[in-house]
Amino acid sequence: MQQTQKKVAVLGAGSWGTALAMVLADNNHEVRLWSHNPAQVDEINRERKNHKYLPNVDLPEGIKAYASLSDSLKDINIVVLAVPTKAIREVLSQIRELNPNNQFKIVHVSKGIEPDSLLRISEMIKEEMPKNMLYEVVVLSGPSHAEEVSLRHPTTVSVSSENMKVAEEIQDLFINQHFRVYTNPDVIGVEIGGALKNIIALAAGITDGLGYGDNAKAALMTRGLAEIARLGTKMGANPLTFSGLTGIGDLIVTCTSVHSRNWRAGNLLGKGQSLDQVLDNMGMVVEGVRTTKAAHQLAQKYEVKMPITNALYDVLFNEVQPKDAVDRLMARGKTNEMEDLAIALGERNNEG
Amino acid sequence: MQQTQKKVAVLGAGSWGTALAMVLADNNHEVRLWSHNPAQVDEINRERKNHKYLPNVDLPEGIKAYASLSDSLKDINIVVLAVPTKAIREVLSQIRELNPNNQFKIVHVSKGIEPDSLLRISEMIKEEMPKNMLYEVVVLSGPSHAEEVSLRHPTTVSVSSENMKVAEEIQDLFINQHFRVYTNPDVIGVEIGGALKNIIALAAGITDGLGYGDNAKAALMTRGLAEIARLGTKMGANPLTFSGLTGIGDLIVTCTSVHSRNWRAGNLLGKGQSLDQVLDNMGMVVEGVRTTKAAHQLAQKYEVKMPITNALYDVLFNEVQPKDAVDRLMARGKTNEMEDLAIALGERNNEG
Repeated sequence: MQQTQKKVAVLGAGSWGTALAMVLADNNHEVRLWSHNPAQVDEINRERKNHKYLPNVDLPEGIKAYASLSDSLKDINIVVLAVPTKAIREVLSQIRELNPNNQFKIVHVSKGIEPDSLLRISEMIKEEMPKNMLYEVVVLSGPSHAEEVSLRHPTTVSVSSENMKVAEEIQDLFINQHFRVYTNPDVIGVEIGGALKNIIALAAGITDGLGYGDNAKAALMTRGLAEIARLGTKMGANPLTFSGLTGIGDLIVTCTSVHSRNWRAGNLLGKGQSLDQVLDNMGMVVEGVRTTKAAHQLAQKYEVKMPITNALYDVLFNEVQPKDAVDRLMARGKTNEMEDLAIALGERNNEG
Repeated sequence: MQQTQKKVAVLGAGSWGTALAMVLADNNHEVRLWSHNPAQVDEINRERKNHKYLPNVDLPEGIKAYASLSDSLKDINIVVLAVPTKAIREVLSQIRELNPNNQFKIVHVSKGIEPDSLLRISEMIKEEMPKNMLYEVVVLSGPSHAEEVSLRHPTTVSVSSENMKVAEEIQDLFINQHFRVYTNPDVIGVEIGGALKNIIALAAGITDGLGYGDNAKAALMTRGLAEIARLGTKMGANPLTFSGLTGIGDLIVTCTSVHSRNWRAGNLLGKGQSLDQVLDNMGMVVEGVRTTKAAHQLAQKYEVKMPITNALYDVLFNEVQPKDAVDRLMARGKTNEMEDLAIALGERNNEG
């Protein structure tokens, strides 16, 4: 496909930032990949490699790595924000302090809900960036292991923004034969689905760790998605989004891959380790643990029944045994499936 | 849980019929398990084993196997029909010829659409059974490997009927601590979801066989479910059903298990075998092949866009190479995801 060449800064040279930089370079854009780690910048520019995060691929010539945030942003108006969720506010405050003349379109590709503030990522970005520096926020999300994108395996994602013209511009920027990009006007649904699927991945890991099998896991994913949709709809999302790429699609990739960090943490919990042991053993952030706390708060705030989230919360923070939590879920009263599922749509219709 | 003891005939002693008979026996019902194979009947009654289909479990005492269809149906008013889809009409005609005095509640647990007639299973049953022998049809469906049910691993299913009182009676019959049963009034949606998921399992096997990875498979499952929902809604189903256990739930189990016959057939196709080679090698019926033909006919009849079904049809019957079919799917025009997904709901609302 032919595209007008653009200049894009990708902030964060982890696996996802690097894979997205590759897509952009494949589309002949000029890509500046910023990393806070000078050794990594050197490695990318000299060897065309990102050994730590994508060891098996050669990076295209169109990617140039930058150690200076200021240099990477010069004359740029599209920024892909690919830093870890917990680093977002810090990086945005650095940008703010640089006081650039540019007004940015920021494409964020992170998944999470900020605990306590209960803000979605696009809301955090709007809070951090003064209006004269922020043209628009776009979220890019969907079922997408970075490794597979870097190997140019077929992948689909959605982009969403309150300004659909900008969403379409970002669609044009990324779309190619291997990387299919849909637009979706529902920012809330796209961000909630991406964040909360990590809870279900943790829970799926637990049932797998308990040895409960595929039936239990499929039930958990189905009913888990239903409760995410109930919450999301109350927050203003379109329930259909949860049936799409950023809902069920991303949920499937995250719950069925042994590479998923959240699934792995759950698996260890199911096998009998405590949360502290699991976090020690993994030695890295497990986003789903933070998100479970946030979702538990959201369920109370919006008065939505979330039995799976609450059961997981009890396992993580109230010392309930995983097996007891599952047994409790199975022993609930007899239910009409449609009444449960219809709550989301009904509430939306009632609210207009 | 306490239940009133009932007499139930389970017709068909394959893995699913036998596992369901075990659930009923666990609930203290008197279970008659009919098999057309006298040696199997003998094995079950003497050894409490079904070596061929569920080799690793001991069958409860409450199950008695019958070689005589007539004897198994004496004084019975609940029949669980667990024979292969293609044997249903034959078995029902045998029942008809027995001319029993009973009026049956028939619970069917099969998945498929009859080619050419394009009838769902409950419609076939109504066609075969005279009204004085048929009280009501119920469908039981959901994400449920028989082996896991026989091991009493947590499993959830839905039951659906045009008569919800009968559906609730069947819910009571089966529900227990390991086997959670929901009701759902949407017979069409439950039957269409169960049947058409086999198409997507075939296609998922193909992308796995091509080595395309988890992103492609998740996209295929998501978009595949969307086109099933579009068709089902046109046929009168409630679109929400496709987000439930018999929709996405069953799809997940079937597409992510290497034990799925449809996935395995697709996998061989993706690796370069022809359909004839695959069917020869597997030596058994691959339901998804028949269903692809039926769904292709349904898409034309109801004028619904089903790009994945059509691509699979071309691979199976028009000698299109799997890789070319996937490339064609990826190269379609730029799309707004919500417009695609909203078609199902919109059409339903317009019609009533």
